[in-house]
Amino acid sequence: MELKNDLFLRAARGEAIERYPVWLMRQAGRILPEYRALRATLSGFKELVETPELAAEVTIQPVDHLDVDAAIIFSDILVVPEAMGLPYQMLEQKGPWFENTIRSREQLNLLDTHIDVADRLSYVFEALKITKNALNGRVPLIGFAGAPWTILCYMVEGKGSKTFSESRKLLYTQPELAHELLSRITEVTITYLKLQLAAGADALQLFDSWAGILGREHYKVFGLKYIQQIVEALPGVPLTVFSKGALASLPDLAELNCTTLGLDWNMDVAYARELVKETKTLQGNLDPCLLYADHSVIEKETIKLLKSFKSQRHIVNLGHGVYPDIDPEKVKVLIKTVKNYEN
Amino acid sequence: MELKNDLFLRAARGEAIERYPVWLMRQAGRILPEYRALRATLSGFKELVETPELAAEVTIQPVDHLDVDAAIIFSDILVVPEAMGLPYQMLEQKGPWFENTIRSREQLNLLDTHIDVADRLSYVFEALKITKNALNGRVPLIGFAGAPWTILCYMVEGKGSKTFSESRKLLYTQPELAHELLSRITEVTITYLKLQLAAGADALQLFDSWAGILGREHYKVFGLKYIQQIVEALPGVPLTVFSKGALASLPDLAELNCTTLGLDWNMDVAYARELVKETKTLQGNLDPCLLYADHSVIEKETIKLLKSFKSQRHIVNLGHGVYPDIDPEKVKVLIKTVKNYEN
Repeated sequence: MELKNDLFLRAARGEAIERYPVWLMRQAGRILPEYRALRATLSGFKELVETPELAAEVTIQPVDHLDVDAAIIFSDILVVPEAMGLPYQMLEQKGPWFENTIRSREQLNLLDTHIDVADRLSYVFEALKITKNALNGRVPLIGFAGAPWTILCYMVEGKGSKTFSESRKLLYTQPELAHELLSRITEVTITYLKLQLAAGADALQLFDSWAGILGREHYKVFGLKYIQQIVEALPGVPLTVFSKGALASLPDLAELNCTTLGLDWNMDVAYARELVKETKTLQGNLDPCLLYADHSVIEKETIKLLKSFKSQRHIVNLGHGVYPDIDPEKVKVLIKTVKNYEN
Repeated sequence: MELKNDLFLRAARGEAIERYPVWLMRQAGRILPEYRALRATLSGFKELVETPELAAEVTIQPVDHLDVDAAIIFSDILVVPEAMGLPYQMLEQKGPWFENTIRSREQLNLLDTHIDVADRLSYVFEALKITKNALNGRVPLIGFAGAPWTILCYMVEGKGSKTFSESRKLLYTQPELAHELLSRITEVTITYLKLQLAAGADALQLFDSWAGILGREHYKVFGLKYIQQIVEALPGVPLTVFSKGALASLPDLAELNCTTLGLDWNMDVAYARELVKETKTLQGNLDPCLLYADHSVIEKETIKLLKSFKSQRHIVNLGHGVYPDIDPEKVKVLIKTVKNYEN
């Protein structure tokens, strides 16, 4: 099916664009009243993730109500560890929680091997198919996964953490175990992402939410090495690598063979452009808190960002997921400002 | 009283040193069995902070047991908001909690004005005097405070947070209110630090724990501006500014008039040296998780850091506070490695 609006894909590939595309991380969910209404009828977050028709519905809501240039499938990065044999719960107000964690060889050995990803994560692929069909070519559909380091963090820690010190401890005390776990996550992730493409995803994003807690050398060895393997397994695919907090590693990220780098609001756009030249598209990087400001401030700061672009290879986004208490009207101001901007 | 070991002070001032000094952030408390034994007899953390004899005792423990080159007074950065009229509790396993927060002009107006810092924080000054006396010149005594931005974060949020989005929201929605609160915190902090010097502190450190959640422009306006005021109010004092996570702002930090910059483990020492030239001492920056590793790894990584120094202006430390579950024997390996290192 031909896309009516393929700006996002053209920007990712470095092709000519009439204007910069714009979408928001976490646009599906939380901030939209339509999402909250649906969510209130369900037992929990995971029911939504695991019910393809509903996941598709909330994926499309921001396309309908916010007029974004791309849809991103509603799902969770933690479906991958669950598929590997480490189930999780999503606790209200608290976040993810795993009953078991991986901190030893014995625990690693309890994970399932040779898993059938197509079967275990069929609900994601089904959601992608339904979404793709229902979108009817309006905008591209983005699939995603967590980067191996971030997935390891949850598998080792069992929940969120300020320091993820158990995970970093593993890198010093049992580096071979860390590498083995990272390899296994990487293998499953590659299969998972290929199946997302087969199910209709037009582009992919890797979220490395905890990249920033590793120093540059550790991130090279335990983070980027595996991202590199994923990138190389997906040649020619529009693929965004978003390593949040990894400002120190930007020069290394610039060497990756992906089409797009995600920038958080601590990463200077001009500096990133200097590093990637015209080899990559940059995505980001407004402060999510900007959307608490008045309409005029949002317009002003968005235009300031747009004016700073010295290349066509940009996709406008926030530097992190949109915060749950943001008024959707503020998001619309951002979207409209990008769409009306005359380069 | 003349100091028997003034390495820390000489390093801070850029004077000649025989070897690099070493101490650890959060060395007083948590990791030491002697601390835990004392702590177990008390009602809570705040009793320890507010009882000068006990605060002095735990301040000196790491000098006795770990052989560090400096003592840092056992206290908490949140005594400043409390002195301003915003009391806090320290909840076990949960961290700080404020019953009231400052998110409006009305709430700001409820804070006390013209406070007598010498009286309200007398327990800190008393602890410094007792410590100074008991140390008997063995090592210098460091006093400290939170940087204004980090103190604002707690006063606005009322507790820890992953994003401190309420605090950042204030910068977009009520910037004048933020500036007024920051000014008031700054004023109290300057008085507080001067009184710490008068009570016996030989050096000072400003902790800006949440510097890294601000983009560079915001940190200039809402963070560094006030740190600059504090630095200028304390000419000639050995003063370390530790802005955790603020890698993007290192070029701005390098312009400050303080003697020392603290580096976290994401900040490259060579890059920081290039920025500060010989105008400043650098403190840091081993990954706190290194202390989970075997003795041989700790030695190797510590020597690697020492070898990377291209100047005498260095103080060895971790890139963050020592984690509570670290074995003190591991800390001793680090300390000994620094002390035995032949430049």
